[in-house]
Amino acid sequence: MSPTIWQFSKRAITLKSSAIREILKVTERPDVISFAGGLPSPSSFPVKKIKQAVDDIFNSEDALHALQYGPTEGYQPLRTWIIDTINHREKLQLTVDNVLIVTGSQQALDLLGKALIDHGTKILVETPTYLGGLQTFTQYDPQYIAIDSDRYGLNPDLLTDEDARTASFLYTIPNFQNPTGRRLSLARRQKLAEKAIKNALLLVEDDPYGELDYQGQRLPSLISYAPNNTVYLGSFSKILAPGMRLGYIIGPTALISKLVQLKQAADLHTPSFTQYIAYEVIKDGYLLEHIPNIRKLYQHRCQFMLQQLEKYMPKTVHWNKPEGGMFIWVELPEHINTTELLTLAVNHQVAFVPGESFFANNPKRNYLRLAFVTVSEEQIEQGIKTLASLIK
Amino acid sequence: MSPTIWQFSKRAITLKSSAIREILKVTERPDVISFAGGLPSPSSFPVKKIKQAVDDIFNSEDALHALQYGPTEGYQPLRTWIIDTINHREKLQLTVDNVLIVTGSQQALDLLGKALIDHGTKILVETPTYLGGLQTFTQYDPQYIAIDSDRYGLNPDLLTDEDARTASFLYTIPNFQNPTGRRLSLARRQKLAEKAIKNALLLVEDDPYGELDYQGQRLPSLISYAPNNTVYLGSFSKILAPGMRLGYIIGPTALISKLVQLKQAADLHTPSFTQYIAYEVIKDGYLLEHIPNIRKLYQHRCQFMLQQLEKYMPKTVHWNKPEGGMFIWVELPEHINTTELLTLAVNHQVAFVPGESFFANNPKRNYLRLAFVTVSEEQIEQGIKTLASLIK
Repeated sequence: MSPTIWQFSKRAITLKSSAIREILKVTERPDVISFAGGLPSPSSFPVKKIKQAVDDIFNSEDALHALQYGPTEGYQPLRTWIIDTINHREKLQLTVDNVLIVTGSQQALDLLGKALIDHGTKILVETPTYLGGLQTFTQYDPQYIAIDSDRYGLNPDLLTDEDARTASFLYTIPNFQNPTGRRLSLARRQKLAEKAIKNALLLVEDDPYGELDYQGQRLPSLISYAPNNTVYLGSFSKILAPGMRLGYIIGPTALISKLVQLKQAADLHTPSFTQYIAYEVIKDGYLLEHIPNIRKLYQHRCQFMLQQLEKYMPKTVHWNKPEGGMFIWVELPEHINTTELLTLAVNHQVAFVPGESFFANNPKRNYLRLAFVTVSEEQIEQGIKTLASLIK
Repeated sequence: MSPTIWQFSKRAITLKSSAIREILKVTERPDVISFAGGLPSPSSFPVKKIKQAVDDIFNSEDALHALQYGPTEGYQPLRTWIIDTINHREKLQLTVDNVLIVTGSQQALDLLGKALIDHGTKILVETPTYLGGLQTFTQYDPQYIAIDSDRYGLNPDLLTDEDARTASFLYTIPNFQNPTGRRLSLARRQKLAEKAIKNALLLVEDDPYGELDYQGQRLPSLISYAPNNTVYLGSFSKILAPGMRLGYIIGPTALISKLVQLKQAADLHTPSFTQYIAYEVIKDGYLLEHIPNIRKLYQHRCQFMLQQLEKYMPKTVHWNKPEGGMFIWVELPEHINTTELLTLAVNHQVAFVPGESFFANNPKRNYLRLAFVTVSEEQIEQGIKTLASLIK
């Protein structure tokens, strides 16, 4: 076909395939031990409970509604459940009008980018950060300001009042961040919220991993400190099943109304069917018994990987000890380029995500992300041993 | 909350809530006879078959895959089924790489807008046309060129070579169009395809209603005449269930690859769960027995509404006799503004969609769209009688 038949828009030309995506293709080979994917463990999926939920829906009058077009905002009982849960947990008094259901929280990022970014709009991101967020925002051509982070998460002292006043929003993942697995400390949450309020800065708080705290000791969310300044993004992908693609946005009603319009243009609404099922699964408090099992499973795998890192890695290699979530962030000696290491590692049947794609500006090349939840203990030991020997 | 905390992008400011959306809110009142919605009839939903499909998935090893993240392109067996079906029907030799599964075909329109429209890009639309298409494209700020249509659909003679050469694409719904219910004639399909090939024009062929031909005598699609120049959009919403939000895009691989990247940024992928279910439902030819039932049901309702229009409407009112689909397009005397009529009609418990929102430029105000598939015969008679008396 002649390429002259169409011409891509500027935004389409800038968009490149994500590194994660290309890597995942390689790691679909069954002989590769993959620490690359951000996939939750399938053994955490509540298959029986979901099957029961579907049966209950099909045995009720809900079936026809679950198969019909629905409101763009989402299924009302599910929205009510979400806002009740968040109000209770974060001590807030929000209403159902503060909630929009989205087709996975990736869609939340896209809708926020559409709603808030023009060419050259300044946005603040902690660094490193979720590459799917960067990829989505980049479509709308912002100017990134990167805020450095350390083991306590992003450092609010590095955020100037000037940037806070002039940026469209600050994007952050406070809990068990992707890619670092770090949790933003309590003191920093308070400080960041204060700075946001003082400078009328909008915080975009992305929280897919918040429930995966191994000790079940959740810190208050940014939205609890700065409810008028925060858009909170939640997800069922890591606590129920990602194949249902269910997430939600909580925010000020004037912002939610606009996001509803953008969502209507994007896909009319999130599938009714999956929303009905999710609600049926969770409405009677099922997550209270289910989530502790996921935490236990992930904590166990995390501990095991940390032990193997201790056992095999040379002294020049450093990593964090996550208190939750799915990722460990590993720092190698500065002369090692992890993107080059990946090619070598894949030849030895091991995969990870090189750190450079997680930086908005000035990528550091000596970091890598390890995911531990979809691999067995045998695979973890074998994979870490191989990686260590390659690094040495 | 202070509005100074965020500033909407230009595209967000331009976007307005759709008329259909506002109207649907009114028509949720159970006392209103609504000819407004574009909803398929719930009595056409294959509830038992879908329940069986879910059971089969949960009784197999597919369950965990159906609940896990999946590839952005979509579930491979579903893509294969789609391309086999289209190849057979349209006598083409496309491959699975020509197919991308989307979260309802509204998403296809959004992805195409993102991929192909910059500020001021010229795009061609038949007029009137689907307002959800206009709403989505408008986000990306194109310049619309409207091509007039008559009872045989859009008139290719009104498309100049100059416009065909310089436009990014032409958007058309050849079968039982929304809002007019018209079908593009065979001769015009050929002529349009020739013009597209001659001028290297991309055709966006949106075909959600193609299977709803009352006589089961489908005309060849534009993609069969101009396979290199056509992006074909299909949907399961009108032949299976819209609450599953499943559609697909068929096009040249270089275009599909870019749309895949944009889709990844938009929502990672369409829910795996609904894709597995749809495939399980249709894989053994179930649609061949199911679709004729929908056709019969819709034909019957259509005939009945046409009879009531004959019986009650004054001679100054005109309408088409659809050969398929869900809509009748009604022309009133020029002095009647149907948006004003709607307010009056809703006060009398009847709703429809006023025609003006379906025009890209220079809206005509004396048309209205009637949907007949979700209303009973009693409601049709009562509603048309009321409308006729208001028009008189």
